[in-house]
Amino acid sequence: MRKTIVHILKEEPKGHELTVKGWVRSFRANRFIALNDGSTINNLQCVVDFENTDPELLNRITVGAAIAVIGNLVESQGGGQAVEVEVKAVKVLGDADPEEVKKTILQPKRHTLEKLREQAHLRVRTNTFGAVMRLRSQLSFAVHQYFQKEGFYYVNTPIVTGSDAEGAGEMFKVTALDMKNPPKDEDGNIDYKKDFFGKETNLTVSGQLEGETYAMGLGQIYTFGPTFRAENSNTSRHLAEFWMIEPEVAFCDLDMNMDLAEDFIKYVIQFVMDNGQDDLEFLENRLIQEDKSKPEAERALMPLREKLKFVLENNFKRVSYTEAIEILKNSKPNKKKKFKYPIEEWGADLQSEHERFLVEKHFKCPVILFDYPANIKAFYMRLNEDGKTVRAMDILFPGIGEIVGGSQREERLEVLQEKMAALDIPEEELWWYLDTRRFGSCVHSGFGLGFERLVLFATGMTNIRDVIPYPRFPQNAEF
Amino acid sequence: MRKTIVHILKEEPKGHELTVKGWVRSFRANRFIALNDGSTINNLQCVVDFENTDPELLNRITVGAAIAVIGNLVESQGGGQAVEVEVKAVKVLGDADPEEVKKTILQPKRHTLEKLREQAHLRVRTNTFGAVMRLRSQLSFAVHQYFQKEGFYYVNTPIVTGSDAEGAGEMFKVTALDMKNPPKDEDGNIDYKKDFFGKETNLTVSGQLEGETYAMGLGQIYTFGPTFRAENSNTSRHLAEFWMIEPEVAFCDLDMNMDLAEDFIKYVIQFVMDNGQDDLEFLENRLIQEDKSKPEAERALMPLREKLKFVLENNFKRVSYTEAIEILKNSKPNKKKKFKYPIEEWGADLQSEHERFLVEKHFKCPVILFDYPANIKAFYMRLNEDGKTVRAMDILFPGIGEIVGGSQREERLEVLQEKMAALDIPEEELWWYLDTRRFGSCVHSGFGLGFERLVLFATGMTNIRDVIPYPRFPQNAEF
Repeated sequence: MRKTIVHILKEEPKGHELTVKGWVRSFRANRFIALNDGSTINNLQCVVDFENTDPELLNRITVGAAIAVIGNLVESQGGGQAVEVEVKAVKVLGDADPEEVKKTILQPKRHTLEKLREQAHLRVRTNTFGAVMRLRSQLSFAVHQYFQKEGFYYVNTPIVTGSDAEGAGEMFKVTALDMKNPPKDEDGNIDYKKDFFGKETNLTVSGQLEGETYAMGLGQIYTFGPTFRAENSNTSRHLAEFWMIEPEVAFCDLDMNMDLAEDFIKYVIQFVMDNGQDDLEFLENRLIQEDKSKPEAERALMPLREKLKFVLENNFKRVSYTEAIEILKNSKPNKKKKFKYPIEEWGADLQSEHERFLVEKHFKCPVILFDYPANIKAFYMRLNEDGKTVRAMDILFPGIGEIVGGSQREERLEVLQEKMAALDIPEEELWWYLDTRRFGSCVHSGFGLGFERLVLFATGMTNIRDVIPYPRFPQNAEF
Repeated sequence: MRKTIVHILKEEPKGHELTVKGWVRSFRANRFIALNDGSTINNLQCVVDFENTDPELLNRITVGAAIAVIGNLVESQGGGQAVEVEVKAVKVLGDADPEEVKKTILQPKRHTLEKLREQAHLRVRTNTFGAVMRLRSQLSFAVHQYFQKEGFYYVNTPIVTGSDAEGAGEMFKVTALDMKNPPKDEDGNIDYKKDFFGKETNLTVSGQLEGETYAMGLGQIYTFGPTFRAENSNTSRHLAEFWMIEPEVAFCDLDMNMDLAEDFIKYVIQFVMDNGQDDLEFLENRLIQEDKSKPEAERALMPLREKLKFVLENNFKRVSYTEAIEILKNSKPNKKKKFKYPIEEWGADLQSEHERFLVEKHFKCPVILFDYPANIKAFYMRLNEDGKTVRAMDILFPGIGEIVGGSQREERLEVLQEKMAALDIPEEELWWYLDTRRFGSCVHSGFGLGFERLVLFATGMTNIRDVIPYPRFPQNAEF
């Protein structure tokens, strides 16, 4: 394969000849090409002997153009880089008309993130998005590496699902029917028997229930795939299509589940600390620059890498919901009526403002809340002996809020059936799920981690639309 | 975390105490429990001192039950295993009523694959599906490991797409509209402006076009995600929902693309040969047993692992479409009119029967066909100088047929525009795709590999519905 710049930059400058291909990031003084090929955020400086180069060729070395350079790798004369290429020949592979470039975000000047989003097909060519997407890739790999080394099996749960019982959110419908003239039954309802799958189908909101069936066979599994919410949430923390990681473990209680989640998150963060230094450094500096134009109160508490290190070096604080309510009830903002939703009594659902208070003001570290009231959590969570709380846990991160939601699952068939009946979830819908409790049921637990929230945290980006290549949100499915 | 059986089986039998949890696969003579926890196909033998065990407890040690065993790990007295557990205590964690078990595929007897499919939530607890799904997980990881070590970045291309121009197949629609009473515009058409995304959206058939935009920034990328076809193909080789791997590489021509594909496939097969021996051995023996009841002509030519080794040790035969047509035209089955679709002239689209002849009869090894007629291939493929063929390549595998389809992409803006115009693909649909040819275009290539076909090949299974946890096909979206 082609030699990429990330490797060339590590070579000894022995004056040897090489060929390198990439895109022009800048061309200074008709002499210095900053060449980037996406393999690293760092450019390779290629020094052109402009006096002996065809001026027409020089004119075509413009920002965004794809070129091939043949030259010798030598010690750099200037500062800023260890090696550079003494150019012997340049070939333009693909031009980039400067007049056309001016109309795009390739134009080297400051563009807003909104503007970059409109040209999501080009934004990966910028330093910021190159860095974010390389880190995203590393985080993905770290996820697989962690679970595989721990003996988990990767399971692809279905994307199109015939069950809508999980209740994690509004679902998108999937159909192959002619929507303008769908077949109808005698009662005038749409006849889904004539649809592709012979029934009504949706896009999955979670692979958990199917994941549980596999954990009951393979012992410990994880999913990592796209999930969907048809919720009209136009926020910087929600996507209609996002990637989720859902491990599920047999013979595992809530404490072990919390240990797993914490160990997992620390592993993947350590992985990018070890393998993504250059990109992290760039993003850290970007944030420092950004902060300079912000009022003091809005600035980041720590530089990016320090924040990541802080997570690595501290235990996540484990606090029961009941304790958390006490803390919140007695907190300054609650007493001074600063919360939009005042905390009055046990049983209240926690809002983002409360989670942020706990994490950012009170504990000042990642927090795991557990043992939530049963009636604000999903039906499949293990009921505690108190009869009113369930073995749920949420992990809350500074700046992000909920990054993990998990629980020990209700392993007792009768308790599960009672819960489902109370919530009007028909057993026929989930006969296969109930079977896991009929045949060799056991204590088991799992959690879901929204991958984009992890990428947000690790990159320091603030809008979730900026950490996925082509974000999907209300009124947007461009590209 | 819990100690799993795959590790226990490798321990020195020092008579030390351990606790192990799993599901009962069999219980012989009130004495020998075969315990499995999914971590390996191999069971751990646990020997019960039945004379000193409560008979009521013994009665609950039934096939499918989840139990915890405390005992000492000792050298096995019988043959068949190196170590076994001398049981000191057994606890039943979850019963499995033998009368209920009899109604399921957990009942230890031979079940048809069709029957197993109907209970897809339980089939992973059988030896065959445990093995297949562990190998599937290993193959997935090998995919990531290969590309990451080669400096590729993982990219999640969108699942819900607003463009339907790729033309790889029929698409499923995605909507949040009330299908019974959808909003209509003045002309009586469905008003998709009122739909969630403000436009008509579908499930992706390929991430290639978006992948190309990323390859033009990051250099070399790969996708690995679900793709969809709303085609009424009720065959053993097609799924409505399947996982696809799509690498895309800048500055890479068709020859390098073929090298990449071959190297990649060999790597992932080597990976399961190295890491999945026990499961492969089981599946190999399963096939040998199955073959005994088949007529000679239908039996496998080689045992499973020999077949995999054969792929590793031989170069894939590279043959142009034009050469292939000559071979087929002059072949015995063509002359004897044995082909359903006789090959009469250059330009014919190759059918499965032709591909199988080339791979299984003529070359007897994996074959890469390249330089296909332009008019039977997609618009984005690089037109050759002859003006009638394109730089496409398909990799054909014995027993599987097409496992990879790829091409060098048309990097010339004008040629691409002409092609699109000829095929009535509106430029407005793909303005962003065309931009990759406007700004620093370059020679680039990629391919798609249907992951389930790879799993089929590596496991020796014959129906694609048996290598994905919950298969989706016409009239089926259960679970």
